[in-house]
Amino acid sequence: MAEPSENPAPPQAGPSAAAAAAAEGGEGGISKKAAKKAEAKAKKEAEKLRRAAEQATAQAAAKAAAQTEDLAKDNYGQETHETKLSADVVEVSLKSLGEEHVGRTIELRAWMQNARMQGAKMAFIELREEGNLSIQGIVVASPEGTPVSKQMVKWVGAINPESFVVVEAKVQKPLDTVKSCTVVNYELHITKCFVHAAAPSVLGMTLAAANRPVANFSDEEVPIEQEVEKLSVAPAGNETTNIPAASMLTHLDNIVMHKRSAVQQAIADIRGEVKELYRSYLRSQGFKEFEPPCLIAAASEGGANVFRMPYFEKEAFLAQSPQFYKQIEIAGGRKRVFSVGPVFRAENSNTPRHMTEFTGLDMEMEIKKDYREVVQVLEGVLFHIFRNIQERCAEEIALVRSVYPSEEFLLPEPGKEVRLTFAEGQKLLREEGPEEFRNVSDDEDMSTPQEKALGAIIRKKYNTDFYVLDKFPEEARPFYAKEDPTNRKVTNAYDLFMRGQEICSGGQRIHDPVELEARIRTKGIDPASPGIKEYVDIFRQAGIPAHGGGGIGLDRVVAWYLNLPSVHLAAFYPRTPKRLLP
Amino acid sequence: MAEPSENPAPPQAGPSAAAAAAAEGGEGGISKKAAKKAEAKAKKEAEKLRRAAEQATAQAAAKAAAQTEDLAKDNYGQETHETKLSADVVEVSLKSLGEEHVGRTIELRAWMQNARMQGAKMAFIELREEGNLSIQGIVVASPEGTPVSKQMVKWVGAINPESFVVVEAKVQKPLDTVKSCTVVNYELHITKCFVHAAAPSVLGMTLAAANRPVANFSDEEVPIEQEVEKLSVAPAGNETTNIPAASMLTHLDNIVMHKRSAVQQAIADIRGEVKELYRSYLRSQGFKEFEPPCLIAAASEGGANVFRMPYFEKEAFLAQSPQFYKQIEIAGGRKRVFSVGPVFRAENSNTPRHMTEFTGLDMEMEIKKDYREVVQVLEGVLFHIFRNIQERCAEEIALVRSVYPSEEFLLPEPGKEVRLTFAEGQKLLREEGPEEFRNVSDDEDMSTPQEKALGAIIRKKYNTDFYVLDKFPEEARPFYAKEDPTNRKVTNAYDLFMRGQEICSGGQRIHDPVELEARIRTKGIDPASPGIKEYVDIFRQAGIPAHGGGGIGLDRVVAWYLNLPSVHLAAFYPRTPKRLLP
Repeated sequence: MAEPSENPAPPQAGPSAAAAAAAEGGEGGISKKAAKKAEAKAKKEAEKLRRAAEQATAQAAAKAAAQTEDLAKDNYGQETHETKLSADVVEVSLKSLGEEHVGRTIELRAWMQNARMQGAKMAFIELREEGNLSIQGIVVASPEGTPVSKQMVKWVGAINPESFVVVEAKVQKPLDTVKSCTVVNYELHITKCFVHAAAPSVLGMTLAAANRPVANFSDEEVPIEQEVEKLSVAPAGNETTNIPAASMLTHLDNIVMHKRSAVQQAIADIRGEVKELYRSYLRSQGFKEFEPPCLIAAASEGGANVFRMPYFEKEAFLAQSPQFYKQIEIAGGRKRVFSVGPVFRAENSNTPRHMTEFTGLDMEMEIKKDYREVVQVLEGVLFHIFRNIQERCAEEIALVRSVYPSEEFLLPEPGKEVRLTFAEGQKLLREEGPEEFRNVSDDEDMSTPQEKALGAIIRKKYNTDFYVLDKFPEEARPFYAKEDPTNRKVTNAYDLFMRGQEICSGGQRIHDPVELEARIRTKGIDPASPGIKEYVDIFRQAGIPAHGGGGIGLDRVVAWYLNLPSVHLAAFYPRTPKRLLP
Repeated sequence: MAEPSENPAPPQAGPSAAAAAAAEGGEGGISKKAAKKAEAKAKKEAEKLRRAAEQATAQAAAKAAAQTEDLAKDNYGQETHETKLSADVVEVSLKSLGEEHVGRTIELRAWMQNARMQGAKMAFIELREEGNLSIQGIVVASPEGTPVSKQMVKWVGAINPESFVVVEAKVQKPLDTVKSCTVVNYELHITKCFVHAAAPSVLGMTLAAANRPVANFSDEEVPIEQEVEKLSVAPAGNETTNIPAASMLTHLDNIVMHKRSAVQQAIADIRGEVKELYRSYLRSQGFKEFEPPCLIAAASEGGANVFRMPYFEKEAFLAQSPQFYKQIEIAGGRKRVFSVGPVFRAENSNTPRHMTEFTGLDMEMEIKKDYREVVQVLEGVLFHIFRNIQERCAEEIALVRSVYPSEEFLLPEPGKEVRLTFAEGQKLLREEGPEEFRNVSDDEDMSTPQEKALGAIIRKKYNTDFYVLDKFPEEARPFYAKEDPTNRKVTNAYDLFMRGQEICSGGQRIHDPVELEARIRTKGIDPASPGIKEYVDIFRQAGIPAHGGGGIGLDRVVAWYLNLPSVHLAAFYPRTPKRLLP
């Protein structure tokens, strides 16, 4: 609606009227006295008129000013050091917003998620806080031009989405529940609004696009048209499906918007809880935390897939696992230890399951009677994690599922945990698996497709997505794995699986240096080779109790629990052979 | 005492006696009949004697066997799969040992700390568990030879120290309190003892030596005689002072014994609590944990002291700080984040304050009104740590002090926290510091000796070992530091100190891309250079609120709190330019 042009015409008065009156008298032929009197009267009259005209002009000017001057000008704009909110304002976060705030004036610092004009005198905005919390705000021009003017409404309605703003507003109950925001029972009647940090007018990726499932995880750039076709995950049934999905590369190039998406915030929250639950459970079981080094002098697992680097006059390697150091902790007098930290694999694999850097949740413990004590702790900590995130993160899990649909993660009843031997697993695969796995051998390790097929059989048969395979064949395990003393073809080593994918590998280690050296030779390794020698020597320093442990991949636990299409979505900054940015 | 040689002489009987009797008869000239009669009688006699002799031999053999056979042979020895403890045995840890156990038979798995014979029939042993818990055990030969034989006593008394053993024992109250062990009110009367893992007969470093203060921290090998002279820390006044102290290199070469020492166990326990207190406090303040990457594409701080390595077809760097990533988290919609993880510095410094890999406790947060909100959180988390470890780790701190004596770490009363501006600190140094610091300038950063001198002045003046220096000069801070808008010669940046040594550096960051680029140019850096461009671009992606943070060095907090002679003692596996092992 256009502004009504109401500039009043100035009143016709002033010196010209007085002159006209004087001329009138002069032309009528009257006496000098009368003429003087008339002149004085005319002057008075003229003065009176002049004053009236002056007054009228001033009034008209004031009226005009009232129409154009912005009486709300201090209530909006770019935030500066002089920006001031009202003295009685209370700062709230949307999480804590409640009935006690209704009618009160609050301060909110948030992102402008959306802003749209509704006519010239009103704008609707959506303000978003950390996580996925959003609230509707209304900016309505006041008839008096303050606290909100039409100029202010127009300005607020044009704020770029994803700018960070500071608003002062009165909390009100909306007439109907708000459908577009997570806060449905309150709305904000904005009285001040300042832009603290402006977003660009065109975003590299909109929030709506960031909230769509990632279209593909290729390390190579793919044209947008192809991306949409390649979409491997079915889009959730909501109104955003007409927004094209972006590739992982686009997400990473727009990391700020990627991270602002509700789905990534939810994944990050779940990951944080998994990590915390891991630590708190192990601490409650008498485990002590330690930090293994990343920089090491030798590649203990044979040197494959290890990053090497110049280190002053020597060479250094990045640790592929903290296992050596976990064992030193046990040798050094600790009963139970755990660590949480980065591990590195220089594997040139571009798959949704691989990264070059990921977070290991490791543990190692003294074995008292039987290595299954370790399996029990590993099962225990994972059950603890699964059961608690189902409760603590129910909303976040639902949110992730709305973008990346998945079946519920099935857990067995307590006491019905599934532990099979590797041989039992292979038997199941031969008997109930697909045609091509009819001849799998008990002596060889499983392939990824075999593992997945077995996971499907176990889900059907035992109603669980989480299980243990124990007693891996001797040939499938490294030199430090303790053989089963009653059957040397297998080891006291196990893997833990989620949805048919390995998330944890572990076992009992050989703690006797003589036995260890013998097995190293059997494996065709020279016990004097770098890394191996230092490893064996540890067991010669003093008497070391039987021990075992395991390493859980945090990224995989999060990704497979949520059945994400790639582990890269579970990582904060996924590292792949082609990508180190951001 | 020698075993009495009681082999009885065999009785003189048998065929020779019968022959003598026959000869007797033959020589006397008697009748054939009488001779035959006599012969038969002699035969009978001989047979009788033979039987008696046989009986006597068997009896003697039985008696001899009773003297040498070991009736306790199943109660000691090398542990095997057949090793069995009694059915009713209860496994205990020394921590949980109490009055309810007196008179009961328990199982304990522990290290043989010491064993000595007391005559032929008794041995005293000391058994040690994780931490510093130890208990006295007594092995006494039973008169019946079981459950404990003299052979068993001798064998147990000869077990190599630092072997891992499993014992079965009855818990008893000792006549006097035990002085040599931490458990003073109970002792163990050993009935079974098995070696689970034997230590070598000569240890690379004894536990007593490992418990002595480290003699020197040089990266070069130093002959032992020199080491003792170089001893920088006064030895604690206990009976172990006649044991020569070893160098840090010797400790690291004997990492198992180094870690078994009570002092290192205590330091590790304190470190673990510091880390946990850091996390739990920040979580309680709304901070969310994330993991920054170690592998990065560019060295953002100019490329000095950064490790570089081949990364597939590219080059990668190891992160010197997670700052860039902390800021992306804030840009990505988090209000408050923290991380705990390794950071790397390729600094060729061989000092007690430097390592090439250490653990960073980092945090970053949105600033609402003033950057001092960040200082308050950093002060808050450190006070929380200091006050809680004083309570939770009182014993461990006392133990460390018994080896590395130090003055108590002074903390101000709540509300009397010391925050000085950098300029105020320099003024103190000029006015109350040593002669050579009379002319220090407000515009230049402080040297380590200046920092230490200021720490001493502040301790005397304000009775605290912990304080903040704020408003560092613009020239002393990097390009991302936010200048004080009211005085552009200084920045909204601060350091936190313990005992005059920096443990945390932080400040408000520039969040506006235009302001950031301008300051980068002022600092003489090209905003398009690798690492810098990616950094600035983050702030262009969307509107990012004002924020600031800090990074605390975990190793330093532990080391300086305990006033250890080197930060290397606080690390699990110290990394120096010359040392990557173990």
